[in-house]
Amino acid sequence: MFETDPRLSALPTPALVLDELRMRRNIQRLADHITGKGATLRPHLKTVKSIDIAKLLLTEGAGPAVVSTLAEAEVFAGEGIRDITYAVGISPQKLDRVAAIRAGGCDLSVILDSIEQAETVNEASRRHGQAIPALIEFDCDGHRGGVGPTDPVLVEIGRTLHEGKAELRGVLTHAGESYSAVGRDAHVAFAAQECKAAVAAVKNLRTAGLPCPVVSIGSTPTAHAVENLDGVTEVRAGVYVFFDLVQAGIGVCELEDIALSVLTTVIGHQREKGWILIDAGWMALSQDRGTAQQEVDQRYGVVCDDAGNVLPDLIVIKANQEHGIVAVRSGRSTPLPDIPLGTRLRILPNHACATAAQFNHYNVITPEPDAPLKMWRRFGGW
Amino acid sequence: MFETDPRLSALPTPALVLDELRMRRNIQRLADHITGKGATLRPHLKTVKSIDIAKLLLTEGAGPAVVSTLAEAEVFAGEGIRDITYAVGISPQKLDRVAAIRAGGCDLSVILDSIEQAETVNEASRRHGQAIPALIEFDCDGHRGGVGPTDPVLVEIGRTLHEGKAELRGVLTHAGESYSAVGRDAHVAFAAQECKAAVAAVKNLRTAGLPCPVVSIGSTPTAHAVENLDGVTEVRAGVYVFFDLVQAGIGVCELEDIALSVLTTVIGHQREKGWILIDAGWMALSQDRGTAQQEVDQRYGVVCDDAGNVLPDLIVIKANQEHGIVAVRSGRSTPLPDIPLGTRLRILPNHACATAAQFNHYNVITPEPDAPLKMWRRFGGW
Repeated sequence: MFETDPRLSALPTPALVLDELRMRRNIQRLADHITGKGATLRPHLKTVKSIDIAKLLLTEGAGPAVVSTLAEAEVFAGEGIRDITYAVGISPQKLDRVAAIRAGGCDLSVILDSIEQAETVNEASRRHGQAIPALIEFDCDGHRGGVGPTDPVLVEIGRTLHEGKAELRGVLTHAGESYSAVGRDAHVAFAAQECKAAVAAVKNLRTAGLPCPVVSIGSTPTAHAVENLDGVTEVRAGVYVFFDLVQAGIGVCELEDIALSVLTTVIGHQREKGWILIDAGWMALSQDRGTAQQEVDQRYGVVCDDAGNVLPDLIVIKANQEHGIVAVRSGRSTPLPDIPLGTRLRILPNHACATAAQFNHYNVITPEPDAPLKMWRRFGGW
Repeated sequence: MFETDPRLSALPTPALVLDELRMRRNIQRLADHITGKGATLRPHLKTVKSIDIAKLLLTEGAGPAVVSTLAEAEVFAGEGIRDITYAVGISPQKLDRVAAIRAGGCDLSVILDSIEQAETVNEASRRHGQAIPALIEFDCDGHRGGVGPTDPVLVEIGRTLHEGKAELRGVLTHAGESYSAVGRDAHVAFAAQECKAAVAAVKNLRTAGLPCPVVSIGSTPTAHAVENLDGVTEVRAGVYVFFDLVQAGIGVCELEDIALSVLTTVIGHQREKGWILIDAGWMALSQDRGTAQQEVDQRYGVVCDDAGNVLPDLIVIKANQEHGIVAVRSGRSTPLPDIPLGTRLRILPNHACATAAQFNHYNVITPEPDAPLKMWRRFGGW
């Protein structure tokens, strides 16, 4: 009844499956969109946490890249990546590790949004005898951290760095709220708002006589929609490498672009309830319910056959630790297909970052139809 | 302002912290409750996934235990545990691994709830020249899998096993819905319902002339409440070792019993919003929101000081991948305390199984006040 991929048949389930062809297309798509707009693409490696994928992403080899943990910075610096931004507000305790990574030859920069943090970076720069570069995080949409782009505090932080032992590297923002904007027009407008805030932040610093060599923006929706990058020097994005149901739900990609899925096996039925039990629960799928607030709630994921073809209206409606329950989407009259015990299925994830984090390696389907699976290691930790 | 534990000060954050004293008390409490009631306690090792903790839990050393993955079965069998139940419905593809673990000297049993599965277990038993023991999963509360305790299919499955090459080991149920029952009286009633269903399932099999040596029930709420275990041979529970906010919310434990927490560092403030930013997002805390439907929604976790004392009305209201936002609980007028950059806090988890799974080791605070931290490895995978 369903298509199968014989290369997957020997994998114990649940297992993380990566479609390399789809991934390469996704990588190329954003590279093509940014190229020629006068800015650099700085891929966020928090999604992939894989040396193999980082090498595909960073065609120049040495960067630039952005990370979400110092563990990522250490691993990727160890692999020769020479330009990394650690894009989580720096805490004083982490600065010795930052200095050690820099001492190993990687130009690791940090971000911050307070004078207090700037002072700790100055202090660490003095203590380690090297100017640690810092970007000031500004806020373009009320999402999380950052100072207002026209706030005088931005200048005070900049001056603290510039007149201290640290290096004022520039400004950075993340349009995290763009994940709630639906459709290309909304993303174009959001990207314009992000760029406008960036230009205002730069002006704020430059008017005060401070340098601002780097102007960094980014989120997957705005990166794919941005039309004009005047005044911006770099764009960051991460989840675009794999894509997921959240991105499909807001129109950044199609279901057929999603490169990541969880291979699972049917382990039982509760036929009178219309349930098919699978061996992928939240331990495999993650508990990310990023589509819960979208127009179409995909619950714990969209069900595909073993070859990756979407099965109409079948989703994982519930997830326990090691059990998932597959059923027809609420409100649809599609009959539940007869899927026998032992059948392999693949589940598309709500959020690629969260689902990938539940596994320690990717099982990679190569573009060549007869080539064996590749196994790429994933790391975690902080 | 806050109490600190100097032993934690050198840990990079986020980090998983385990209070050994609280854990030992939790382990003792359930052992004391079950002892003398005529049944055996079979701890579920899916929560801890740690050899060190398994050794504390299984005072006899060799079991009994229950697991949720074959990876757990392999690790624990390798450490000498000789009696393990793999309590997720068996799929045909997993039976060769089951037979291999058994061949290594561990009495590993499987569970199933269909004739089709029973036939595959018979077939694997024949192929491997050993009777693989299987328990029939029955349903006591509509939670997930299992056949009805009085359903004639239960007998058909039993007969398929008993007359085939497999071994009919008994029956098993899990009162998963008891997690929604609040208060001791409700748990006592739920445990009685679980036991009553078990007795009915056994009667169903025995009336048909089939053996039923093992009668297994269990969930953390019902295990702590059960008063009469007549007819039941074993009780399973897992999360009780650590406890968590879900269990505290339904009255199985107090906040002060929760042995697991995530150590985090303050990395910023958005003072006009009443937000404190921490370096524990959902990658550290997990996205489990098990208290969301409870009377008190603890969002992503309850905030404690570095020494583990609960801070009044402070919770993690929002979690991004590597950022958490701490704020005063909605509807409370408690002022936001001034918690400076770099302060260490500890977050109590919604669900211990989910939060522990985000880390690869426990940092263990020993009962002796001056002893150094211990580091206990955790494993994952399938």
